[in-house]
Amino acid sequence: MAKVLTSREENYSQWYNDLVVKADLAENSAVRGCMVIKPYGYSIWEKMQAQLDKMFKETGHSNAYFPLFIPKSFFSKEASHVDGFAKECAVVTHYRLRNAANGKGIEVDPDAKLEEELVVRPTSETIIWSTYKNWIQSYRDLPLLINQWANVVRWEMRTRLFLRTAEFLWQEGHTAHATREEAIEETEKMIKVYAEFAEDFLAMPVKIGVKSENERFAGALETYCIEALMQDGKALQSGTSHFLGQNFAKAFDVKFLNKEGKQEYVWATSWGVSTRLMGALIMAHSDNNGLVLPPKLAPIQVVIVPIHKSAEQLNQISDKANEIMKQLKQRGISVKYDNSENQKPGWKFAEYELKGVPIRLAIGPRDLENNTVEVARRDTLTKSVMSLDNIDQSLETLLAEIQENIYNKALKFRDENTYQIDDYQEFKKCLDDRGGFILAHWDGTKETEEKIKEETKATIRLIPIDAPYEEGKCIYSGKPSYKRVVFARSY
Amino acid sequence: MAKVLTSREENYSQWYNDLVVKADLAENSAVRGCMVIKPYGYSIWEKMQAQLDKMFKETGHSNAYFPLFIPKSFFSKEASHVDGFAKECAVVTHYRLRNAANGKGIEVDPDAKLEEELVVRPTSETIIWSTYKNWIQSYRDLPLLINQWANVVRWEMRTRLFLRTAEFLWQEGHTAHATREEAIEETEKMIKVYAEFAEDFLAMPVKIGVKSENERFAGALETYCIEALMQDGKALQSGTSHFLGQNFAKAFDVKFLNKEGKQEYVWATSWGVSTRLMGALIMAHSDNNGLVLPPKLAPIQVVIVPIHKSAEQLNQISDKANEIMKQLKQRGISVKYDNSENQKPGWKFAEYELKGVPIRLAIGPRDLENNTVEVARRDTLTKSVMSLDNIDQSLETLLAEIQENIYNKALKFRDENTYQIDDYQEFKKCLDDRGGFILAHWDGTKETEEKIKEETKATIRLIPIDAPYEEGKCIYSGKPSYKRVVFARSY
Repeated sequence: MAKVLTSREENYSQWYNDLVVKADLAENSAVRGCMVIKPYGYSIWEKMQAQLDKMFKETGHSNAYFPLFIPKSFFSKEASHVDGFAKECAVVTHYRLRNAANGKGIEVDPDAKLEEELVVRPTSETIIWSTYKNWIQSYRDLPLLINQWANVVRWEMRTRLFLRTAEFLWQEGHTAHATREEAIEETEKMIKVYAEFAEDFLAMPVKIGVKSENERFAGALETYCIEALMQDGKALQSGTSHFLGQNFAKAFDVKFLNKEGKQEYVWATSWGVSTRLMGALIMAHSDNNGLVLPPKLAPIQVVIVPIHKSAEQLNQISDKANEIMKQLKQRGISVKYDNSENQKPGWKFAEYELKGVPIRLAIGPRDLENNTVEVARRDTLTKSVMSLDNIDQSLETLLAEIQENIYNKALKFRDENTYQIDDYQEFKKCLDDRGGFILAHWDGTKETEEKIKEETKATIRLIPIDAPYEEGKCIYSGKPSYKRVVFARSY
Repeated sequence: MAKVLTSREENYSQWYNDLVVKADLAENSAVRGCMVIKPYGYSIWEKMQAQLDKMFKETGHSNAYFPLFIPKSFFSKEASHVDGFAKECAVVTHYRLRNAANGKGIEVDPDAKLEEELVVRPTSETIIWSTYKNWIQSYRDLPLLINQWANVVRWEMRTRLFLRTAEFLWQEGHTAHATREEAIEETEKMIKVYAEFAEDFLAMPVKIGVKSENERFAGALETYCIEALMQDGKALQSGTSHFLGQNFAKAFDVKFLNKEGKQEYVWATSWGVSTRLMGALIMAHSDNNGLVLPPKLAPIQVVIVPIHKSAEQLNQISDKANEIMKQLKQRGISVKYDNSENQKPGWKFAEYELKGVPIRLAIGPRDLENNTVEVARRDTLTKSVMSLDNIDQSLETLLAEIQENIYNKALKFRDENTYQIDDYQEFKKCLDDRGGFILAHWDGTKETEEKIKEETKATIRLIPIDAPYEEGKCIYSGKPSYKRVVFARSY
């Protein structure tokens, strides 16, 4: 029998974990808080990487690579940055092991203590801006548009596969500009790239906005973000883009000669998405049967399962399957033919549902006679019979339809779970009963935000950039407010 | 004026370093022994990665990702492995920083000491085999063919950009097999993939063989390698593939149920190439004018430089250049049009020579009249005039010719610098005067190998797998030998 998941209704958190592990996406490693990304999960991440990388390059960015380690002294140069990250840093203090004195195993060699400790990068602003100092002299050296694909480490105490791990994979863009305006434009451009990626590829609608001061990146003047709504009504921050002002340029003394011949500090942005997107992808669409993958990110888009009794039947089906595979591959559709003898068709059906393969074809002797195939859609769990004539064309169209349907379903869910609320009791009840995005008035103060968080566990996920002017009263303090912000409980 | 390199003849080592830095490939970072790979250097590495990744997938491998950190206790489980790596490990001992007691900067928080120290992976056999224990139960789970793209850290005392750095980027394949034969087959298959890649893409001829016991990977029963000859007569190990026997399976107790229903230890291989290949690429082909890139790895294959006096001329040339670019892009040729006004054509010529761009086109007003273009080849530094008719076809052919020529030149160099030597005095003289690969007889003992290394700094680079049977006497001890091995000084 195939692997069974805990149902969403029974225990959402356990459902998520079961799914990640049983669909072979990732698992916990022997190292506290660090995950192993398994081949199937990694192949989805590779597809995300390839598309994002393309989008970064199309917007003029180049990749580079900076050191994993950051000298401790660099780290403390930008005051709010170090405050934000110091409490969760892996620190390298020694560079050698030796045989233990008691003859058992090995131990850290006390003679190999580093003069200055090295922090394993939790993010690379400091090491990168210390490098940019040598790269930037004049306005001709700007803008500098660089991205890095890398691993980073943040020593989280409570971890969950993909969503919050001590080590994770990400990309971090770090750009340098001659003017404030240009840096803000870049910050906004990249959050829009993320939104486009989330919607077009993850099939996940997102809201774009800026963070309140409390939730801002440590060292940023403004943090833009995209937020998506998961099926349990909690929000998930899926990407951020920071306008860093001149904070890092000042910390690392990075100046340039402007066109007027004057020295000025450089303006900075940074932006990143991570393997957390895997968590978003999983939670946005999947069901009690397993993963539901949008076709654009599915490593296998179509799987073919033969239904046969005799070896002769299998041979005939295999001939047909090979024909179909050839046609599909020519259209760039990734297809797998599972003719393994170890498992029965029913087991395979369940397995590919678990793995989220968008389309499953089943071919039996009768299909050969009728020139048809049974087509099962993962997103709707419906089956239909299709003609084998132009099957490649039909499936290409169907894949596009599935991609769209998954998006629309998620959009509908989000719309149905977005509320305008003006009463604090109702606000609390909504959070407890249904979750969702709550559009509410806020008086703009840190104090109110913190009180609400304390009392309800909800935070301001974002302040929409295009929110309409609307007079109202803060849901908590009753003070005047002129636009609604988005509250939610979140991952 | 463009940047000038130290010449190879004057100081080879300085030439190499100048080239890496001035061609914008990489530079030293503020972190001892760690480099920054700059965008131009990284774009070459990306091309290498893309091709290797394709070859790994074509041979049935999938990518995955394992933790950066390895618990110290895992590390000591395979005795010879820990001996090989313990002396150069970065060790994480703490997971938090705090504000310093004196109010200045930050310090390691002594309360955040890890119970067990974590080693930053120098290679991942131990963490991966501890994971495989859960993935492998039966022969049906085998073979397991996995690759990882990752950063690793080995605390080297003397570092050189790309060739030997504390942190470097690489890929490491880790496969698991049911039989000894299959594992050996995999080991050999992957060294051949590396050789094919080196020859077809880096245009760098390599010798394939196995290492002597002294030079074997820590934990391997057999290490296969490819070795290339650099222009200063020193060898550079460019890739290794290890047959690990059952060593790691035993260390981590990884057994499988074979077809006969018996428990057996699993057989293992591992194989890797790294950013060191960048060093090999640079040293194998470049000259005193800069980099010479094989077209297949060149981020820019063709550069177009306009030669004009008036703005009107520039307009006309730009129209033509755009036409050519469009044609070249359709053939998948990467092309850059440098119409920047900051620099004169002569400066640009030198700059693109430094950067190793295989073909440079110069277009002036007379070319427009004659429907021609001046074509300069980076590999031969020769110029010719070509018709603009079918220029895309002509350049595609020329790129292939350049790729081949660069390989042939390197092959000729290697052949001219490979010697059969039977006399120890001559052996030493050859190493001092000319370097190169020396094919000599060796009695097969560790002692002789070490003596030769002590006296000449030459090591056995490899024992050719296909060396013909030849009776002879060890060049050092005079004892009988039946085949020649390859000696050289090396990087």
